[in-house]
Amino acid sequence: MKLSEGVEWGLHCGVLLGFVGPDASLPTARLAEYHGVPGAYLAKHLQAMSRAGILESVQGPGGGYRLARPAADITVLEVVEAIDGRESAFQCAEIRRRGPSARPAREYRVPCSIHSLMNRADEAWREELRRVSLADLMGQVVAGASPKGLEQGARWMQEVLK
Amino acid sequence: MKLSEGVEWGLHCGVLLGFVGPDASLPTARLAEYHGVPGAYLAKHLQAMSRAGILESVQGPGGGYRLARPAADITVLEVVEAIDGRESAFQCAEIRRRGPSARPAREYRVPCSIHSLMNRADEAWREELRRVSLADLMGQVVAGASPKGLEQGARWMQEVLK
Repeated sequence: MKLSEGVEWGLHCGVLLGFVGPDASLPTARLAEYHGVPGAYLAKHLQAMSRAGILESVQGPGGGYRLARPAADITVLEVVEAIDGRESAFQCAEIRRRGPSARPAREYRVPCSIHSLMNRADEAWREELRRVSLADLMGQVVAGASPKGLEQGARWMQEVLK
Repeated sequence: MKLSEGVEWGLHCGVLLGFVGPDASLPTARLAEYHGVPGAYLAKHLQAMSRAGILESVQGPGGGYRLARPAADITVLEVVEAIDGRESAFQCAEIRRRGPSARPAREYRVPCSIHSLMNRADEAWREELRRVSLADLMGQVVAGASPKGLEQGARWMQEVLK
């Protein structure tokens, strides 16, 4: 079971764009440069976040992406689902309906208990990610980052946005 | 993000072997027949469950697999981890250390907040699966199954085990 590597990229881009704020934007190439990831692959994930209403693209010179809503209103789960989809990790093939104990479909009135349990676990996973917003992550980044790293990041951003 | 289809197979086999009990066993071919799944693939998952101490194999004619411990002592998480591994779905590539704000490794004293959050979500998922045993699933199967399906399953088992 593996999430797309794009989940890490998309979350970091969301946090960086949170710092950029609503009055500026960053193009894909700059977001790729900042995170040291390939632009062509990143573009696909940014487009998915845009389709999901997390990012919006600003046209024209100096255009790029910005958050479509305040960072406090965007949950980590939204970013994860935009990039990795909403499907549960457990795909039930209903094998209980096969073999010598198989019965007509109408007799399976209760959902498979294994399937129900896996759905509960999936929901617990999503609930953890629903509780945290991009703004929360921004706060944790500021609290945890090396002061010199923050300074370098801020200088890069001033350079790029001017 | 997808779990191996073997997770569903392994859990159903664990439940069926719980009903078979400690004094009998079922060979791979019978477990495959009962669940309508390919024996060669199922064999791989049963071996993984055996290596994990969930199943034990009984040698000789009439041999096969049985649960290595009482069904109440085997959690769903154990079966899931035996088949799908213990790795978190989120693989952190530490991209925060790249690009223009990169700093020497010693300055990253706090774990990446994204990584920590994804680990918490992963643990919430595992905790749901740790709370439920194969014996719990057996009870839910009996409570939810069609009476005729149970009867057919019991008849098959008597036939196969005699």
